[in-house]
Amino acid sequence: MAMMPATPALQEVRQQVADLLEARNLDALLKLLKTQHPADIADVIDLLEKDQRVAIFSMLQNDIAAEVLDETRTEVTRNLVEAIPDEQIADLLESMPMDDAAEVLSELEADRAEDLIGLMEPSEAAEVERLLAFPEDSAGRLMTTKVVRIGASWTIQQALERLRTVDPEVETRAYLYVVNGNRQLVGIVPVWNILTSAPNKLVSEVMDPEVTSVRVDADQEEVAHLVSQYDFFAIPVVDELNRFLGIITHDDVIDILQEEFTEDVQRFGGAAPLEFSYLSSPIIEIVRKRVGWLILLILTATLTGTVMRLFESDLEKTVALSFFIPLLIGTGGNAGSQVTATMIRALAVGEVHFKDLWLVIGRELVTGLLLGLAMGAVGLVRAVTWGTSFAVGLTVAASLCTLVVWANLMGVVLPLFASRLRIDPTVISGPVMSTLVDATGLLIYFSLARVIIGLFV
Amino acid sequence: MAMMPATPALQEVRQQVADLLEARNLDALLKLLKTQHPADIADVIDLLEKDQRVAIFSMLQNDIAAEVLDETRTEVTRNLVEAIPDEQIADLLESMPMDDAAEVLSELEADRAEDLIGLMEPSEAAEVERLLAFPEDSAGRLMTTKVVRIGASWTIQQALERLRTVDPEVETRAYLYVVNGNRQLVGIVPVWNILTSAPNKLVSEVMDPEVTSVRVDADQEEVAHLVSQYDFFAIPVVDELNRFLGIITHDDVIDILQEEFTEDVQRFGGAAPLEFSYLSSPIIEIVRKRVGWLILLILTATLTGTVMRLFESDLEKTVALSFFIPLLIGTGGNAGSQVTATMIRALAVGEVHFKDLWLVIGRELVTGLLLGLAMGAVGLVRAVTWGTSFAVGLTVAASLCTLVVWANLMGVVLPLFASRLRIDPTVISGPVMSTLVDATGLLIYFSLARVIIGLFV
Repeated sequence: MAMMPATPALQEVRQQVADLLEARNLDALLKLLKTQHPADIADVIDLLEKDQRVAIFSMLQNDIAAEVLDETRTEVTRNLVEAIPDEQIADLLESMPMDDAAEVLSELEADRAEDLIGLMEPSEAAEVERLLAFPEDSAGRLMTTKVVRIGASWTIQQALERLRTVDPEVETRAYLYVVNGNRQLVGIVPVWNILTSAPNKLVSEVMDPEVTSVRVDADQEEVAHLVSQYDFFAIPVVDELNRFLGIITHDDVIDILQEEFTEDVQRFGGAAPLEFSYLSSPIIEIVRKRVGWLILLILTATLTGTVMRLFESDLEKTVALSFFIPLLIGTGGNAGSQVTATMIRALAVGEVHFKDLWLVIGRELVTGLLLGLAMGAVGLVRAVTWGTSFAVGLTVAASLCTLVVWANLMGVVLPLFASRLRIDPTVISGPVMSTLVDATGLLIYFSLARVIIGLFV
Repeated sequence: MAMMPATPALQEVRQQVADLLEARNLDALLKLLKTQHPADIADVIDLLEKDQRVAIFSMLQNDIAAEVLDETRTEVTRNLVEAIPDEQIADLLESMPMDDAAEVLSELEADRAEDLIGLMEPSEAAEVERLLAFPEDSAGRLMTTKVVRIGASWTIQQALERLRTVDPEVETRAYLYVVNGNRQLVGIVPVWNILTSAPNKLVSEVMDPEVTSVRVDADQEEVAHLVSQYDFFAIPVVDELNRFLGIITHDDVIDILQEEFTEDVQRFGGAAPLEFSYLSSPIIEIVRKRVGWLILLILTATLTGTVMRLFESDLEKTVALSFFIPLLIGTGGNAGSQVTATMIRALAVGEVHFKDLWLVIGRELVTGLLLGLAMGAVGLVRAVTWGTSFAVGLTVAASLCTLVVWANLMGVVLPLFASRLRIDPTVISGPVMSTLVDATGLLIYFSLARVIIGLFV
């Protein structure tokens, strides 16, 4: 998403932090940080130099430090874990919800994570290992298992008593999840319904038995889809026998959406998504994720080269033709990517479906024609005022117009067919699009040149 | 984000809907839809033809129809509102939460919305008009005003009694908002705290007095930032005197994130964001949003043209040089946009800050050199096996290598300086990037050509 502006209050805090760091006044800095939310402390620590990070972090209280460690970015988490004794880190991990501990551990090197798990309380270590056994990006990795469960056969009175004894570590108590004797999920009750029902009623009478849940092995995209489609506060996770395992809350879904956006933006730019954050990714991984596209483009550029060789004699006769190649290629690529970007997004949010193909093609042909005429007119004026011959100017204008219409058509057809074939349309966006339009655009340009310049000679 | 796959269950329903439509069996279709969630009914209606939409929609029960109308996309909402009598639409609007009614009304033509508001109950009409008076994309537009308020001076017993009488239309009862005698927000209490506290305690004793709120005129991006930064369930909205007006819930934040991302993707593609969904936007608006960039590019292409004219004699002597122009431009543009996309995202999620400039430049120079060497090697082989002279092949290889390093550098510097100058870095992404790199890339190419080919002649 666009830069999310920090609030004025947070910006002020950051300025104060910078001033205190400049003055090396760590005591005052610590005092300031203590008044801040752990997520903001993490943001400030992200901004510090490595030594300062460790210095500040190790002065935080244990419970705050645990929350901060959960919020820092991968690179910083690794910095901190490296510099702080294992026992202390294990203590911090134990004081986190286990899904967050699993997340922190998954950011570390495998050996290091093993060592730390070995130092945790056996019951918590077992819990964390169980979570880490689920595949990355699956519901099992994201769920919290600390949830209030009540029995369907209990009375409201019993449910109330249970609620009064709930472990304060349980994060989420707005909804209670109802299970039967086989630990299967059979219903859900908002806490306020418990509150406003007669104490001798049964839970099964006040619960909503229609609960949407996800399987523990479901992909995180499915989780995000369900929660955002139905505006859920949280979604329960069950195993293959419908036994209730935990829940995934709305804040995890926001994190998933942000992560998926990041991957999409990287694909838009023509690179495979990075596994970790940018600064924590080794350079060699970044090279590997990018090199594929670039090499592929050299090979497909054979196509544009071949087109140009076909027209070698025309180019020799009229060198001025080559001056407009960058303009044509740029215009075709840009017009195409404007359409592709719009289509990909419209497909993702369900505004456009494959069945709209003809409607969308119609719209983009009209749009392309209007844009093409405008471009052609400007292009003609530009070429002629630049002292280019009228024939070349006319060729450029006619090519620009045709090319924009053609690029708009491709910009619709490629993503729509990709989604029809269940290929993620972001994959064929930007780079593939331009390569295709480049070659065909030059073919159009030189063919028109041969005809139009022929007429004038 | 990537295509969010519909769940298998939903896909099956869609298939059944398609079959029933094919068979024109509207009765069975209606029966099927009645078992579905309103958000899914809306998705199905989105897929239908205009006549079918109206036919199905007008057979739904009022309360379901209201929820469906809230979930359909702009174009469909307009279709439905056009075809259904005003009185009936006004009834539906009245049965929605007023923030949703305001949202539906804001999707209609202004005259039409005025007429409908005129038909609503005066109190609800006033409420909706109050919401519509806030600027679009402000907190005031997004908030729901139906929230449970309790007094700080009340006892827990009084709060419990209030909760039992709450209007069933109130959506959100997980947290109770505490106000003082001046209607100012002074605290927040989770419902479960009310439940587990002694009845004679005061609300002020159990509430959390540290509440983060937003001003009613705050931008929706600030709202999204706060809720996702602090994992809030909802955020309270207050006026300039800290008087409590309503709340914005997590599901609205997910909608904001999706909307902001759509805008960013459109900007990435090099177009100004559309105000409405793609299919509901008039073609002339789409043209207007896209033409700016395209025309600007023609003018900046003067730059590439000027560079080529400088080397006109070289081009005349060695026409083969022009064959590689599309390859060079494509490679420079792609390498640059890979880096820009990564930077923009890393800036947006706070992984990279301006102070990391030198670190990031260092990383990208190394990455660029590795990628450039790989590209140069492949380029040389390609040129030579293609029968191009060794001198031209060497020129292409050296240019590819230099260009990738240069594009990587620009890909870091442009977004980082943009964000420093508080310009949204997506604005300078893709198109501007390529234009800049195109011109400089050609300058590098022809300069190297003059030197290298000169050596061989």
